[in-house]
Amino acid sequence: VTQQKTSFSNRGMTLEEDINETNSYYLNTNKAVIHKKPTPVQIVKVDYPKRSAAVIKEGYFKQASTTDYNGLYRNKYIDFEAKQTKNKTSFPLSNIHEHQIEHMQAVNNHGGICFMIIRFSVYDETYFFPAVKLFPYWDSQFNGGKKSIPYSKIKEDGIIIPFQYQARVDYLSIIDQLYF
Amino acid sequence: VTQQKTSFSNRGMTLEEDINETNSYYLNTNKAVIHKKPTPVQIVKVDYPKRSAAVIKEGYFKQASTTDYNGLYRNKYIDFEAKQTKNKTSFPLSNIHEHQIEHMQAVNNHGGICFMIIRFSVYDETYFFPAVKLFPYWDSQFNGGKKSIPYSKIKEDGIIIPFQYQARVDYLSIIDQLYF
Ligand SMILES: [Mg+2]
Ligand SMILES: [Mg+2]
Repeated sequence: VTQQKTSFSNRGMTLEEDINETNSYYLNTNKAVIHKKPTPVQIVKVDYPKRSAAVIKEGYFKQASTTDYNGLYRNKYIDFEAKQTKNKTSFPLSNIHEHQIEHMQAVNNHGGICFMIIRFSVYDETYFFPAVKLFPYWDSQFNGGKKSIPYSKIKEDGIIIPFQYQARVDYLSIIDQLYF
Repeated sequence: VTQQKTSFSNRGMTLEEDINETNSYYLNTNKAVIHKKPTPVQIVKVDYPKRSAAVIKEGYFKQASTTDYNGLYRNKYIDFEAKQTKNKTSFPLSNIHEHQIEHMQAVNNHGGICFMIIRFSVYDETYFFPAVKLFPYWDSQFNGGKKSIPYSKIKEDGIIIPFQYQARVDYLSIIDQLYF
């Protein structure tokens, strides 16, 4: 049964692909306007060939200063970061950067809905983890605490996101429960 | 006097640079959380040299499907596109893409604050132009209407954005007036 669920729900799609499909579905059904931000690239050299498109010949990946996704749902600003881990027992905080935490705190302070989507790929489980639950774990690592969030705490403080055929990571259903 | 104003306010800075500085100021003073989205790039070839950062060796600029800027202010979702024109008499609609209009309509329908920032560089004037004022001009071009918005109409339907020393394009002051 577990195996069937796995092959049905994920078929080798990454969390990012699942979320992008979900967002397209939300957009096409006029439910929400949420997009992935483009990957930040530092462009160093560009060629402009005659009669064809400009070609980037040298560029570098920049570290993101915010989160992966943002947008609008039911009049509310939505902002989240998505992370997938192969870990079985915990979610390592090294997956997140200081700048992203600062961004999430700012969003939270200004009245946005901010959270993480965390997938444990070995269990094929995807959790909605509110940013306010994340901050204490983040802070405690600098005061002798763990460098990761135990899987048991993700289960406790997070909410499992249902798989739907079209909304593969149906996180808006969780937002409906928690914030409205 | 006009010349003095020009050299004081803009000193060769582009509208994008002015808005980026304004957004940094808003962020640093904890007024709002608004960012420019990264330029969308289609990455085709990446080299992974030993002991140094990955290098993008081939990439192409993709057309943006949304707008340049979005974020959060006073609990509200904010979304806008910024355009500068050298034109003296009108703002050409060819500066905007169909996808961007669709995006602005969706934002508007879901309760976001959506607008354009339009700079007439020859006059050194920067206007706040609400998306709802833009849509009728966009639509009318397909029904025999003009392919541009006359400068006089931008003055009439838009609101001039004040220059402030730190908030160089102080668009939040207009949002305060119009939406709160
Ligand atoms: Mg991510
Ligand atoms: Mg622009």
